[in-house]
Amino acid sequence: MDQKIIDQIEAVVGKDGYSVEPSVLYTYGFDASIFHRTPDIVVQPRSTEQVSEIMKIAYANDIPVTPRGSGTGLCGAAVPIKGGIVMAMQRMNHVLNISVADLWVDVEAGVIYNDLNNELSKYGFFFPPSPGSAEACQVGGMVATNASGMRAVKYGATRDFVLGLTFVKADGEIVRCGTRTIKDASGYQLARLLCGSEGTLGVITEITLKLTTKPKKSASCLCCFSNVEDAGRCISAIIAKPLIPASCELMDSVSINAVNKARGNPLPDCGALCIVEVDGETDEVIDRDLKIVEEVANSIGPIAVIPTKDKKLIAQWTDARKSVMTSLSALKPGCSSVSLADDMGVPVSQVPKAVKAFGEIADKYNVTIATYGHASDGNLHTKMVIDPKDKDEWERGVKAVDEIFDVCIELGGTVTGEHGVGISKAPNYMKERASELSSIRAIKKAMDPKNILNPGKADQWEGSILRNLRYPCPEFM
Amino acid sequence: MDQKIIDQIEAVVGKDGYSVEPSVLYTYGFDASIFHRTPDIVVQPRSTEQVSEIMKIAYANDIPVTPRGSGTGLCGAAVPIKGGIVMAMQRMNHVLNISVADLWVDVEAGVIYNDLNNELSKYGFFFPPSPGSAEACQVGGMVATNASGMRAVKYGATRDFVLGLTFVKADGEIVRCGTRTIKDASGYQLARLLCGSEGTLGVITEITLKLTTKPKKSASCLCCFSNVEDAGRCISAIIAKPLIPASCELMDSVSINAVNKARGNPLPDCGALCIVEVDGETDEVIDRDLKIVEEVANSIGPIAVIPTKDKKLIAQWTDARKSVMTSLSALKPGCSSVSLADDMGVPVSQVPKAVKAFGEIADKYNVTIATYGHASDGNLHTKMVIDPKDKDEWERGVKAVDEIFDVCIELGGTVTGEHGVGISKAPNYMKERASELSSIRAIKKAMDPKNILNPGKADQWEGSILRNLRYPCPEFM
Repeated sequence: MDQKIIDQIEAVVGKDGYSVEPSVLYTYGFDASIFHRTPDIVVQPRSTEQVSEIMKIAYANDIPVTPRGSGTGLCGAAVPIKGGIVMAMQRMNHVLNISVADLWVDVEAGVIYNDLNNELSKYGFFFPPSPGSAEACQVGGMVATNASGMRAVKYGATRDFVLGLTFVKADGEIVRCGTRTIKDASGYQLARLLCGSEGTLGVITEITLKLTTKPKKSASCLCCFSNVEDAGRCISAIIAKPLIPASCELMDSVSINAVNKARGNPLPDCGALCIVEVDGETDEVIDRDLKIVEEVANSIGPIAVIPTKDKKLIAQWTDARKSVMTSLSALKPGCSSVSLADDMGVPVSQVPKAVKAFGEIADKYNVTIATYGHASDGNLHTKMVIDPKDKDEWERGVKAVDEIFDVCIELGGTVTGEHGVGISKAPNYMKERASELSSIRAIKKAMDPKNILNPGKADQWEGSILRNLRYPCPEFM
Repeated sequence: MDQKIIDQIEAVVGKDGYSVEPSVLYTYGFDASIFHRTPDIVVQPRSTEQVSEIMKIAYANDIPVTPRGSGTGLCGAAVPIKGGIVMAMQRMNHVLNISVADLWVDVEAGVIYNDLNNELSKYGFFFPPSPGSAEACQVGGMVATNASGMRAVKYGATRDFVLGLTFVKADGEIVRCGTRTIKDASGYQLARLLCGSEGTLGVITEITLKLTTKPKKSASCLCCFSNVEDAGRCISAIIAKPLIPASCELMDSVSINAVNKARGNPLPDCGALCIVEVDGETDEVIDRDLKIVEEVANSIGPIAVIPTKDKKLIAQWTDARKSVMTSLSALKPGCSSVSLADDMGVPVSQVPKAVKAFGEIADKYNVTIATYGHASDGNLHTKMVIDPKDKDEWERGVKAVDEIFDVCIELGGTVTGEHGVGISKAPNYMKERASELSSIRAIKKAMDPKNILNPGKADQWEGSILRNLRYPCPEFM
């Protein structure tokens, strides 16, 4: 990067507000996806005003800017594939204001999800989305990807809590959009548009979130079946009661086996299971809902149904579910679990059909695929266990993934349940959203005419996704 | 309108699919606002494809198009102030598909809100927003204005339920956006952008809404105070418990007096009251929450606190609250209650300050102003009782309204709580959203380059709002 530009950036953020150290640049070339690309400079702004000044420099010099939270994303949205500036938001990590009586909280984009919830819990509130990376991920990154997690079926995804936000446009203009009221009606909902835009429309610097009361009681029921179709039928039947659970985690046999092998059998050996959580204000409500879940599960012909309020047992199940990803990497020596078709959404009733199809696709391409996820909102994760040095295995994997996405789109689903588009979903995202592309591109051009904000991602991606890989597969280097 | 164009339109929708009858055109020049303007033609399409063909004709001939639901809007969004085509959606009134297991329903834009809820209630679900015009308003209009009502504090506004929709762009392109899954992550949320766009970005023809389970029990508590500040303090204290009520309706003394006079004293005579509704799954939950409300209200120093599960008594209170608008028109002979500053949102804690300020403004300009509304989400309605033939009274009214909006913006609020922008809010909407205007206008231009979709409204309005009035005030004709 030109020293003159580095000097201009230093004048804005100071000596300790940026880095061009090769080791730092290398580190900021990763997120949790399969991709890597080294940026030219990492900038760590401390205020919206600094972000604005940096954007003015980038705009004047046509420099790509990739905003970045904690880099926990699985699709490559924070990998700076066109180089330029990585705008790393971790120093803007303050909870600015909590107005309990008005049901909102103002945070800087770099606040960690769990830190925010620790603060909110003092007042009996919480911010529900609950992503898997809760301990590390930043709220700004959650907004940029419309992240969610286990509780979305009952409480909604990140976008459902965003009342307003401050963002910086490509040319440095600072925009405050939305409100700090529970309700606002018409006008273009820019805050909702930015939510899920993955840094392509502006750099989000501050967010106003709506507060939600935290339920006082919860309980869980482990439902074990001989096959994944039955597990899917169980979930559909619970919802049709109607009973909307707080969460409902599905695991297929590949996931269960991997976890049991890696962690000393925390789960019953079965073809598929779901962990159904219910929550509410009183024991009476919990008992009633738990009984409904138990009855529905028993009507499907289960192997075992275990309702419980025992926090230790529930923690054991939850830990087992959360360890799927790491357990899979230990499944075969020299192999890793990689995020390719990492999270799809299908209508809940189509979960059994989808999971069955994923299994057939895995057989067809001779790859190991585990399926698990937040099944009561139809959000399915798959992980592929491959040898990352094996070109052929990558190529078979990508073919399998394309078919997996095709199945989901055909079933009325989506390629992005909660992880975003980035690079890994880009080609299939364009397929799914074909009808929206002309509008999406018109809006992008209107908001970022020089195309400097996280360029080359999502609808701008071209060709195979097997480029910029983080793995040492020589044929793709 | 040129006969050639009428012929083209007839070729699309048939002889019974449009009208140029003067009496019909006159009727479709109104909504429930203070404005009127006769269109050149009213078109009543039966399908998305017909809307698309009509838009192609409009686009080729630069004809303004104003989409219209049932015309229950209070701000003038459906009044065709530039003439041209009114696209009236009432024939597209089918509930297309309900997928209970997948928690969504597909509807055409012209479906009536209450009709939809009658259908959903068969399955134990509902679409909560509950606007005042529930019996008449169309779901498409609700989406176009992001409508809501009494239950927004607990359940959210219309936009919180929109999973996807089909809309027709200015040039006739049909776009299907969003998903039919509970969750989808990144990508520009076009459905949320269209929600609240008041027909300026596209004509909404079909909508996919998320289903919500209907609570089985509810109860209410009438809390009467000597002044509106105490009522406001009561509401803030309930929320800070935290307890989020299903609804909480505030009425000031002007509203209470008007209703008691017009309807034979259904309410206790007091300085201000709030009707707090709680709902939930069991009697135990209801009893607990009702007790909290009662205790909080008693701690404020009330005139009376009446908790009840008596459906007849609750209906009497609800009917009284719903009759505020009509009761006000009977307050002074020859006068009408008009919607000028009809609904603002302020942070809940600022409700007492706002209502007090409204009273002072009414005194300053010697106009009668009633304040009421959905106070637990900070949404306040005011109605002004004026002689619509009196120019001076209109002008004082508009000055008062400008000050009311200023107060709300200063308190961190918004000029559009749930009714939208249209014409009556346009100047103050631009003031409130000054920071967003460049983005709003860039997006509008990108989506509607010829500016034919509901032109001249919201950020495009210029000058005083005292034009195109529906009332026979000669000096404004």
